[in-house]
Amino acid sequence: MIEKKLKNIKGFLGNSIHSGIKYKNLDLSVIYSEKDCIAAGSFTKNLTVAAPVILSRGKINNPIRAIIVNSGNANAATGQKGYDDAEKMCSLVAENLNIGEESVLVSSTGVIGVHLPMEKIENGIKKISPTLTEENIINIPKGIMTTDTFEKCGSIEFTIDNEKIIINGMAKGSGMIHPNMATMLSFLTTNINISKDLMQKALSEVVKDTFNMISVDGDTSTNDMVLLLSNQTSVNKQIIDEDKNYKTFKNALHEILEYLSISIARDGEGATKLLKVNLSNALTKESARILAKSVITSSLVKSAFFGEDANWGRILSTLGASGTFMDPKKVDLSFKSIVNSIDLMKDGEPLNFSEEDAAKILAEDEIEIIIDLKIGDFSAKAWGCDLTYDYVKINADYRT
Amino acid sequence: MIEKKLKNIKGFLGNSIHSGIKYKNLDLSVIYSEKDCIAAGSFTKNLTVAAPVILSRGKINNPIRAIIVNSGNANAATGQKGYDDAEKMCSLVAENLNIGEESVLVSSTGVIGVHLPMEKIENGIKKISPTLTEENIINIPKGIMTTDTFEKCGSIEFTIDNEKIIINGMAKGSGMIHPNMATMLSFLTTNINISKDLMQKALSEVVKDTFNMISVDGDTSTNDMVLLLSNQTSVNKQIIDEDKNYKTFKNALHEILEYLSISIARDGEGATKLLKVNLSNALTKESARILAKSVITSSLVKSAFFGEDANWGRILSTLGASGTFMDPKKVDLSFKSIVNSIDLMKDGEPLNFSEEDAAKILAEDEIEIIIDLKIGDFSAKAWGCDLTYDYVKINADYRT
Repeated sequence: MIEKKLKNIKGFLGNSIHSGIKYKNLDLSVIYSEKDCIAAGSFTKNLTVAAPVILSRGKINNPIRAIIVNSGNANAATGQKGYDDAEKMCSLVAENLNIGEESVLVSSTGVIGVHLPMEKIENGIKKISPTLTEENIINIPKGIMTTDTFEKCGSIEFTIDNEKIIINGMAKGSGMIHPNMATMLSFLTTNINISKDLMQKALSEVVKDTFNMISVDGDTSTNDMVLLLSNQTSVNKQIIDEDKNYKTFKNALHEILEYLSISIARDGEGATKLLKVNLSNALTKESARILAKSVITSSLVKSAFFGEDANWGRILSTLGASGTFMDPKKVDLSFKSIVNSIDLMKDGEPLNFSEEDAAKILAEDEIEIIIDLKIGDFSAKAWGCDLTYDYVKINADYRT
Repeated sequence: MIEKKLKNIKGFLGNSIHSGIKYKNLDLSVIYSEKDCIAAGSFTKNLTVAAPVILSRGKINNPIRAIIVNSGNANAATGQKGYDDAEKMCSLVAENLNIGEESVLVSSTGVIGVHLPMEKIENGIKKISPTLTEENIINIPKGIMTTDTFEKCGSIEFTIDNEKIIINGMAKGSGMIHPNMATMLSFLTTNINISKDLMQKALSEVVKDTFNMISVDGDTSTNDMVLLLSNQTSVNKQIIDEDKNYKTFKNALHEILEYLSISIARDGEGATKLLKVNLSNALTKESARILAKSVITSSLVKSAFFGEDANWGRILSTLGASGTFMDPKKVDLSFKSIVNSIDLMKDGEPLNFSEEDAAKILAEDEIEIIIDLKIGDFSAKAWGCDLTYDYVKINADYRT
């Protein structure tokens, strides 16, 4: 059961401040652990990978003590100086917190192709370092926002060996959201006692069905990064096999990542509606994922939902163009809101439906698109949002 | 040299009328040849393929006498009745023009998932059949439009064996434009004497570098179709090898298809700007095409051009996410209008550039994005348009 707030986990400190990278609002955040953490990560597959991603990816197997995150500037497509700046951010944090530079990860989000204002960041790190506390961690979800309209964080608590385990999760993301093996920024902290390899395995698998199944605009970011740190302070017997306790952990991780993923989709740039695709009976798991995600990605489908127009034929067109097999002659399709549902196609034949009933469902702010392909046994879910005037407005003016 | 109008080609007749499929405007068109034609075609790869595409694809090797085209309804995702309706359209044309049903091709464009109003079409075919003339062919570019704002047609004339050859080309397309091995509707007529196999080969190759390199919204249509008919009335010695004459023909075909492709991109739904990508020195021809097209397809890149914002970092991000190799450390990038140009990145390092100079270029209605990857020898061009409020408006309200 997700609680929509972060909890204190003993030993994890943090805070977020305004350093001046942005004109106003929090823009510089630090997560700090009093003891060494094992870390698991998932990073963008974009070849124009941002400097902080390259650097953090290379350090993910080190014992980790801190993560420094800035918003307002992605430090991507910034050449050699960009990489030097990312390294400098880590060394400044190490110096101020008296820890090793190799134990500091770095993450950035914001405009691409502009060098970081390093003087502001240097002063910011000096300013934030003495303010880190367990309580101040709750400022970070706001500090990592760019065009986001609300904070995305939550926690989940469960028991292993009668020990209370907590996973804290936070994420940001609103535009350039089409994660490929990772997502925009997401940071998770936990106290579970688990082997590093199994923690990475659980994260990698869960990311495929959660963050990787959302899309706001089909653009994969240069800065996507998910980091999970455990300080292993719980005294549960260390999880070293894929046993019942591993499954309990993986299910909890799935729950919180799905919750954060849906939060990102709901807050898609300019979005007025959350769209959920529930696709079943595809030939393979991979093709189920591709097909479900293709619906969420189509500009035409997204525009039709914004217009509250039951133009369901575009969904069939998108499925057919996805590049993986489906048989249009077998498809069942329906739309569902929390209270109503309507069938649009059965066995590949269009149904006569009431435009009035459809309009009622389409007026809701959360709509499920249910697709049964009837050609196999594999399912997938995906989440996205409508395409609106405001999406265009936000992205036409982003730098100004 | 393209002339921006259709010419009379002896033996090709046609016309377009209003039959009532649309509330107003021309919606039913026929191209008719007095003698048998050889035909070449290129069709959508969307698995949710429209009934008329299935039917015409199956007849492409027959001697062809006529093409019937309706706008206002795509006859896609319409089940068995949709297929029966497409067959009925062909048989009605055959009956009214006293030709064989097997010599009639059919093509449709418009809303998906709605059955055709067959009574209106039947009456329309009766009405149009006696009105076909060589001169009336000029009505067809208007008759095949949906959300297009201007007609797309042109002709090219050249000489083989001192014989005058003409290719007439017409096309429609404004939304759901992301052709995969074909495009929205395009019809071409010519009098060249060439073998059917070589005509198909030339068409297939040229489509890859022209229609397949445009994108308006990343959505591949269910109805994409290019048809090229030759009545072979020119007395040039029949082209049966890939000789000099074949190259002359193929170059002319390239010229007219590129012209029609650019017309479609310029008229993208809601577009205010034509974007041209000129990408060079990729590792392979295929990867050059993928990379060039990825830029044209990115919602974020397209929104930035609408906002006249020199947010060039998004282009680097898109190239990196395209799934094919590039090296961000080597890229040169510049923007160019008809009179000005500005360099933004050199050898992977961002350049200091004048925002004022950039703003001048971005204010133009035709902008070239020049990308030099410096990793290989292969080039590609692609064409698209900006993403605007009007794109969303048009597609939010399409059915109403």
